[in-house]
Amino acid sequence: MSIARVAIIGLGLLGGSIGLAAKARSPGIVTTGWDRDPAVRARATERGLVGTVCETAEAAVAGADLVILCVPVGAMGDAARAIAPGLAPHAIVSDVGSSKAAVASALAEALPGACVIPAHPVAGTEQSGPDAGFATLFAGRWCILTPPEGADPAAVAALSDFWTALGSKVEIMDAAHHDLVLAVTSHIPHLIAYTIVGTASDLEEVTQSEVIKYSAGGFRDFTRIAASDPVMWRDVFLSNKGAVLEMLGRFVEDLTAMQRAIRSADGEALFDLFTRTRAIRRAVIEQGQDDRRPDFGREHGE
Amino acid sequence: MSIARVAIIGLGLLGGSIGLAAKARSPGIVTTGWDRDPAVRARATERGLVGTVCETAEAAVAGADLVILCVPVGAMGDAARAIAPGLAPHAIVSDVGSSKAAVASALAEALPGACVIPAHPVAGTEQSGPDAGFATLFAGRWCILTPPEGADPAAVAALSDFWTALGSKVEIMDAAHHDLVLAVTSHIPHLIAYTIVGTASDLEEVTQSEVIKYSAGGFRDFTRIAASDPVMWRDVFLSNKGAVLEMLGRFVEDLTAMQRAIRSADGEALFDLFTRTRAIRRAVIEQGQDDRRPDFGREHGE
Repeated sequence: MSIARVAIIGLGLLGGSIGLAAKARSPGIVTTGWDRDPAVRARATERGLVGTVCETAEAAVAGADLVILCVPVGAMGDAARAIAPGLAPHAIVSDVGSSKAAVASALAEALPGACVIPAHPVAGTEQSGPDAGFATLFAGRWCILTPPEGADPAAVAALSDFWTALGSKVEIMDAAHHDLVLAVTSHIPHLIAYTIVGTASDLEEVTQSEVIKYSAGGFRDFTRIAASDPVMWRDVFLSNKGAVLEMLGRFVEDLTAMQRAIRSADGEALFDLFTRTRAIRRAVIEQGQDDRRPDFGREHGE
Repeated sequence: MSIARVAIIGLGLLGGSIGLAAKARSPGIVTTGWDRDPAVRARATERGLVGTVCETAEAAVAGADLVILCVPVGAMGDAARAIAPGLAPHAIVSDVGSSKAAVASALAEALPGACVIPAHPVAGTEQSGPDAGFATLFAGRWCILTPPEGADPAAVAALSDFWTALGSKVEIMDAAHHDLVLAVTSHIPHLIAYTIVGTASDLEEVTQSEVIKYSAGGFRDFTRIAASDPVMWRDVFLSNKGAVLEMLGRFVEDLTAMQRAIRSADGEALFDLFTRTRAIRRAVIEQGQDDRRPDFGREHGE
């Protein structure tokens, strides 16, 4: 099974980056794309995010060996229904959603009999829309495939090769485990960041202007994450409720222990945690999952 | 009142950066320095962090118009006692600690009659030690002075001019308000980051290796903050307990509301918060408090 034509449905940060990465790294692949927003389609054409931007989802997927749905998780069912009439019988249908069990159900329901292999490239920035994508977004990042039981191994291998060609490292796991792992490495961090930015902007004793002025003390890192796409993230929390609530419970337990340590002036408990966490940062850098430079390589100076 | 000689006590990230910034931007100022760790003194000499690295605190402050204590907040009292014998009667004693009310008390107690003007440059990276400092750390960042009641206005003005010359913008506020503002813009973000990194590394269902591999989904931003100096941060939480617990209470209330929104599938509440927080990010960037580039300008690609 070889992938010669790829259709990208949804031309925002992820869809656009896939198109640009394919053009740069798999130039033999023909890409088509569609977005339900005409303004996005126009901008996608200008930027050349895909070879051909089509006027309908049906036209975009015609003849495609692989269709990748790059829409918010809550819109997957609708997107699947939109492509159904044009889908080739042999086509692999995949996606880039941040939760996987809910997407697998939605796609299986909307496309009975289709070869559905959900996927999640663990990569992104806080920006969104057709101007946000770039060709190196996936380089060195992991892409997790969550093939349902009984999935065609040749299709899984073809999808894996596609992502590897874009620069990704590929891992395969089941959807439920993916949802638990990502709850802690992505969903809870986003929830916390959104919440603290909200808390800070609602205070009466501290003005919003002060929060912004003194954000370089740590807060500004959280504002970046809290600038991510609201629709995408609303859908993530609604679609991965069980794992998110489970991991949130663990976090709150640990936070309560820290609260108690501060209240009782237990410096040793604080020092112990603060020392342990440094090792994780070292491992993240050693394994190429973050920039080694201090402050992520942020610019300093005027 | 003019500042011609500056002594820096503690030659880590902050102390080293002050020395390097002064050399670059105020070359007329003579700088001396001391650190209680002989290895740090040796490295500070090699890097030229200050004009002269002295063998004792007393020698370092001899003749200084301004002495800046760049040690963890919990070590301020000891550092003040170490410089007391050498301190010139006219010298301004200041610091760079992240909490201010506790430092003001410790310095007033250790140095009765001295001209003490606490300060906090809101700048830093996750790195520490004598190799971490650089000359542009303070450029465009705010430095908050918290002069006690009755402080000499000429001394406050001289200290303000010193920081302005290093590239900082200077603000004056009272210590209690500083401690509340920084609790939300710096201390709680650090506590949250340390906690979630701890939570993630303690899970049984998700391995540490998975947490590291898939950290690009948001978690890696938290690992940076959670790699900050453990002693410094232990002392911050112990010395700013009241404001930290107050702000932590607000955050937990808001997090509980988000938890309830997820549990009851209240997409509107999630969307509303996620939309509001984007405006804060825009303001942080517009006011020059963070890098405008996506992902803080992190490197992408192999």
